Order: sequence, then C-alpha cells, then structure tokens
Amino acid sequence: MPVNLTAPDAAALFPVPGVRIGVAEAGVRKANRKDLTVFLLDEGSAVGGVFTQNRFCAAPVQLCRDHLQSNYGIRAMVINTGNANAGTGQDGLARARSTCVALAQALNIVPEQVLPFSTGVIMEPLPVERIQAGLPAALADASDAHWGKAAEGIMTTDTVPKAFSQRAQVGGKTVTVTGISKGAGMIRPNMATMLGFLATDACIAPALLAPLARQLAEASFNRVTIDGDTSTNDSFVVIATQKAGNAEITTLDSADGQALLSAMTEVARKLAQAIVRDGEGATKFITVRVEGGRTADECRQVAYAIAHSPLVKTAFFASDPNLGRILAAVGYAGIADLDQTGIDLYLDDVHVAVKGGRNPSYQEADGQRVMQQSEITVRVVLGRGDAADTVWTCDLSHDYVSINADYRS
Amino acid sequence: MPVNLTAPDAAALFPVPGVRIGVAEAGVRKANRKDLTVFLLDEGSAVGGVFTQNRFCAAPVQLCRDHLQSNYGIRAMVINTGNANAGTGQDGLARARSTCVALAQALNIVPEQVLPFSTGVIMEPLPVERIQAGLPAALADASDAHWGKAAEGIMTTDTVPKAFSQRAQVGGKTVTVTGISKGAGMIRPNMATMLGFLATDACIAPALLAPLARQLAEASFNRVTIDGDTSTNDSFVVIATQKAGNAEITTLDSADGQALLSAMTEVARKLAQAIVRDGEGATKFITVRVEGGRTADECRQVAYAIAHSPLVKTAFFASDPNLGRILAAVGYAGIADLDQTGIDLYLDDVHVAVKGGRNPSYQEADGQRVMQQSEITVRVVLGRGDAADTVWTCDLSHDYVSINADYRS
Repeated sequence: MPVNLTAPDAAALFPVPGVRIGVAEAGVRKANRKDLTVFLLDEGSAVGGVFTQNRFCAAPVQLCRDHLQSNYGIRAMVINTGNANAGTGQDGLARARSTCVALAQALNIVPEQVLPFSTGVIMEPLPVERIQAGLPAALADASDAHWGKAAEGIMTTDTVPKAFSQRAQVGGKTVTVTGISKGAGMIRPNMATMLGFLATDACIAPALLAPLARQLAEASFNRVTIDGDTSTNDSFVVIATQKAGNAEITTLDSADGQALLSAMTEVARKLAQAIVRDGEGATKFITVRVEGGRTADECRQVAYAIAHSPLVKTAFFASDPNLGRILAAVGYAGIADLDQTGIDLYLDDVHVAVKGGRNPSYQEADGQRVMQQSEITVRVVLGRGDAADTVWTCDLSHDYVSINADYRS
Repeated sequence: MPVNLTAPDAAALFPVPGVRIGVAEAGVRKANRKDLTVFLLDEGSAVGGVFTQNRFCAAPVQLCRDHLQSNYGIRAMVINTGNANAGTGQDGLARARSTCVALAQALNIVPEQVLPFSTGVIMEPLPVERIQAGLPAALADASDAHWGKAAEGIMTTDTVPKAFSQRAQVGGKTVTVTGISKGAGMIRPNMATMLGFLATDACIAPALLAPLARQLAEASFNRVTIDGDTSTNDSFVVIATQKAGNAEITTLDSADGQALLSAMTEVARKLAQAIVRDGEGATKFITVRVEGGRTADECRQVAYAIAHSPLVKTAFFASDPNLGRILAAVGYAGIADLDQTGIDLYLDDVHVAVKGGRNPSYQEADGQRVMQQSEITVRVVLGRGDAADTVWTCDLSHDYVSINADYRS
C-alpha cells in the first residue's frame, strides 16, 4: 500500500507542446503488459540528463551519456521494462545501439538522436527483436495526451503510476511542466531502477539543460532513499521543447529562470517523493531534516545515516519510539569532530533529546503519538553551524523482505 | 537459530591464570537474570582496548578511554546488561563513575583501576544503586573457572553464549588465550552493543597491549557486520596477566610475538564470527572476499557495500541466485575509477560473471546449489591490483524485522 499516493487523474496531466508519447505491448519479458514507451520530441527541443553514479552502469546509460554529448539534437527516447540490459558487457552495448538504430530508421533521424532506457532483470540479454517488433505499434500510438499512459508504461513492480503536472507564469507566458517517474526501491535487480522524465515547453538556452537537470536532481531524486542501493540504470531526463513563446531564459539566476526552476523543482520533488511513498513495503513516509551543521554536505551525511539505518527504519515500521537508534545513527554518520553534547532531536513537534541526552520533559506517550502517524518528520539539530539539508525515506517492513526475497520465485 | 554455532563446552574453556570472574543477578532491568559480571585481574596485568567510533559513545566508553590512559594499572572490570548508559549526558558519566568507585572501594584500589561496560537500553538512567547492591554477590562468586558463566552474564538478546579458548607455545612455554563476546546486531538499542573480552597469561610488554588490541580488532571485530549499525557502546578489551613464564615479548614482529598474535587472532576471529552466526534473524553465514584491488582499503569498501546491501542480504535469505545485486553493489561501492569490464564474480566454486558480464558457461542451477548452503563465500575479483580483504556477514530475514520492530512490545 503506497503512503498517501494515488494514481494521477489523466485530466490533470497537461500535455507539453512538442512532446508526443506512444506505448505498446512488446512482450519483453511477459505478455499483455505495456512495456515499451516511445517519446517523440519536436525538432529544436533541448535535453539534459543525470545518470547513475554506479560504476556498473547499464549499456543504455552509457549510450545516453554518449548521445547527449554528440552534436545531434535529441528527437526520441525509447524505454523498455522487463530487462535492464546491465551487467551485459559489449554485447549489451550492441543491443542497446541496435534499438536506437531501429527507432532512428523509422523516424528518419540518426541513432545519436535517440536516448535508450531499460529497466528490469540484470545480466540477461536484451531481446532486441521483440523491442524492434513493438516499435510500429508504439509509434502509431503517439499522442501528446499520453503522459498518464507513459507513467504506466514504465512501471515495473511499482504499485501506482507516478505523474505530476504544473503550470507557471514565466516571462509573461504560461509554461507547462509535466513529468513521470518509476521506482520502488533504489534498485530492484529483477525489475530495477529509478527513472524520471520531466518536460516543459519553456524556451531556455539548450546549454542550461544539463545544469538544470543536475540542480533538479539534487533537490529531488538525489534526496530520496529507500534501501540505500543505487541502481545500475537510474536516469533522470529533462526536456525543454521551446514552444511556450517566453523570451529565452539564458541564466537560471534570472527571475524567469527562478520561476521555471521553482515550478520544475516542485514537480521533480513530487515525482521523487512518489517513489518513496510507493517504496517496497513502505507504510510510512519519513522526512529527515538535519539543521545546525557546518555544511549542507555534513547535514546530508547525517540525514542519510538515519535514513539508511535498518534499526531506525524497523522502529518506524513498529511505531516504536525507540529514539536512541536515531541518536546512535547520528553518532556513526562519520563526522569525526561531532560533539554529542550539542545535539537536539525532535520528532515532529516533540522535543526528544536536549544536548545529547534525553529531554527531562520528554514523555514516551508523546513520541508514541507521532510514531503512529503515516507522515513523520525527524529533525536533528547539530548545534555547530547554520547549514541544513533534508532527505526523504520510508520505513523497513516485513513486506520489504518478502518483496525482495520472494520476487523471483 | 544461530548458524552453525552452539554453546561452548565449559570444560573446553581454559582458565587464564591471573583472571577471576564473578557473576550475579542485580536486577538491572529484569529480575532473575545474570546481568552483572566482574573481572578481577592480578596486579601486573596489562590491558589494551578498542572502542566504538560512534560520536555518541556511551558514558562507560568515555571512562574506559580515560582510565586506560591513566597511569594506574587496570585491576577490575564491571559489566552490566539491561542499560547502556548512552545518550545520558553528564548524569550518565557520574553514574558510570560511581559504579567504578563502589567496586574500587570493595577491592581497595582506586576508581581509575576499574573499567566499566554497559549494554542495554539507550537514553535511560543507569540504576547505579542496583549495580552497587549486586557487587558483593559478584565478588563472592569470583573464580578462574567462570569464563562460560561470564559469556552468559554479558548476553542480552544473544541466543547462544560465545566463548572460545586456545593454547599455544610461545617462547617454549604454554600460554592460554580465552575470550568471550556478545552481540547479535551491531547495535540493538534496547539491549545493545558488541562486547569482546580476550585474556592471555602470556608475558608481553604492557606498551604492546594497545597496538595488539587494534591489530586483533582489525582482523576480527572490525571485519564483521550484521546491519551496518555501529553501537554507542562497542568495546573490545585485551588482557595479558604476565603469568606464563615466557620471556617478555617486546615486539609483535618477533617469532614469539607472531605465535601469540596468531593464537589470539584465531580466538578473536571466532568470537567475532560467532556474533554474525548469532546475528538477528540470521539463517546464513556469508564470507565476502574481495581480491585484485589496488589497496586493502578499497577491497574492504567493496566488501562492505556487498555485505550491507539489503537487496543482496534478502537474496541470500531467499536462496535466490539473483547475483546482479552483487554486481550492482560493487558498482556503487564508491570506487570512482572502477572499470566494470575487469570484474569477475564467484559464488564458492561457481564462476558467475566474467569481465563484468554473465559467464557464458554459468548455469543458474549452479548458483542455486550454492545459495542453498548455510555457509557461502562471495568472491569478487576487481582485476586492478594485488590487494585483498575479507568481511563476514549474514542474511536479512523476516526475523530481523520482527526482532527489531517488535522487541519492545
């Protein structure tokens, strides 16, 4: 059961002029399943991407990086589920490339104008022939109204499709931002991977797309964690179709740049948080905020130590205010000169620990009350500076073990 | 059910001349439970220790560090279960100190000659008065034959007491090495902590005890992980009572030093591995060996990424040869210039991946066969150097979640 997350209302997903989407059943791994999605981008669209830091990155991720660096403009994306094409060596690269070649031939563009994405089983050969055979149906399905269908088309073991949309005023024009994502563990090697696609019709200098993608990822997908595992295929792509008629944004620091960034950040963050809300076995959505650090980096380091601790996560699952576990995670987060006597801990509005020790006025009943909620904020104050950062995570339940232990059987 | 681990045979635990142990029921948290253990060391014993790196270290850990640095020789140790005296601030330090004062008075020594250890609930005040009231019974119980009883006395939610003993020839004399340990998660904040105590009657220069403790910890307790959580109270103490009559060892690099180190390493490693075998919910004992790295540090980094991955650990629980999860963990271990095309993966004798891709001759049935064993070795060859390192861990099961989610209820 996802935590406070329902399927999107297709009517609330605004089309992005310049983007058409088609979905087909290609039988990549299982029959009768929407497993092949094609994005078609009008000429002149600008595209930026952020990809997994995993050194075992998948073949399609390698091709995405190459194609984005080439001088050809990106005109299409092809996404399959059922097979990750990771851990597949040189043969995997050749298969990813031939997928791009097939789609490029159908569209009369060059293969470097296609970005490929795969998600699914690791270490199995990609069934290219099935993907190629499915392309005509996907192309025939292309429509600017298919964002909701695309959100379904990229799902693997997600329980809910994830799509959000927003409009904003930029330079006196209305621009649209619509995006989809998938993922339920940071990696799920049978049906793996976080994918995120975000499009806007805003006019923005193409050179800004890469830094824009990085900034958006930093504020969204790079702030969520379910199990600390990083997929071989994680990809986040940002598209600007340049159709909105606003004066071209040439710097993100301008008022127009900030207005667009704000709208895109809101959608990216909802997409990222939706992955946590649909996290494997999740029953609670936890915001971990660390304040009073010397740098944002050290705040994030502490937040991740809390968010990754199996003991903290099982305590949330149990609604057990066993809050020493949080202090212990702060302590082992790796800040060598951290002074425990400066640390305060809050659970929502409840002040649990003062200067490294139990708050004399803390009552376990108060902690218990907050722990029973489905949305909880852990706030740690380090007491050594003015920096802060936030990470979103979920609890660790019996279902997490069941899903990951029993999936292939 | 611990993995291939049974309670020690008391007759196989050799007394260490110069060490006497007494155990009592002090009712620290629950009645009718051996929860207070006292070690008495003859004058002239040398002691070294290694303690948690957690910045939220417990009050007794802070006192242990101080007392080991003082010029007084250590003559006694006092260990309570049921309360960790961690996250307790200045008041916790005062309570730990008064425990040392009480034992010192009874023994007519100074408080700095006492090392205190606590394990149990975090953020609760230590019930010093109950510990003090229990000391006379523990002292009256003191005997050099009580190693097995001590292994029980320091247990919290361990399911099996952990004690090993060994004799070795050092400088023409027979020396004895006997040790005990406790722990079943790296931290269990209600009944927390890894503790290890290892004693020998060998004659060895007192200045060598601190480096000896570090070397032994590096080869044993610092190579095991259950859930990646580091306790606030982890402590490992090495005692040399100087009674064996061998010529004093003045360097660990000598033949005698190596003979002693070897015997002590074997006992320390068994004690550390016993903690994994009795790991919370463990059903399998996994050896993760990483070879072919540029440095031992990077090999250990990769080994820990594998050993901490919830996805790898749940696959072992399920006996599911879902081995892409291991490759993915190698990839995100944080080695920035790792080349995936150099990496081989073995599961015991089964060669699973070659140069970053699936081994063409690998059959899933072979992987399946190994995954069903209770003891499994994962071997990763990085193909970029001659260094290697090994870490021991266990799987992640439903029982891990049950134990940690349901414990306090």
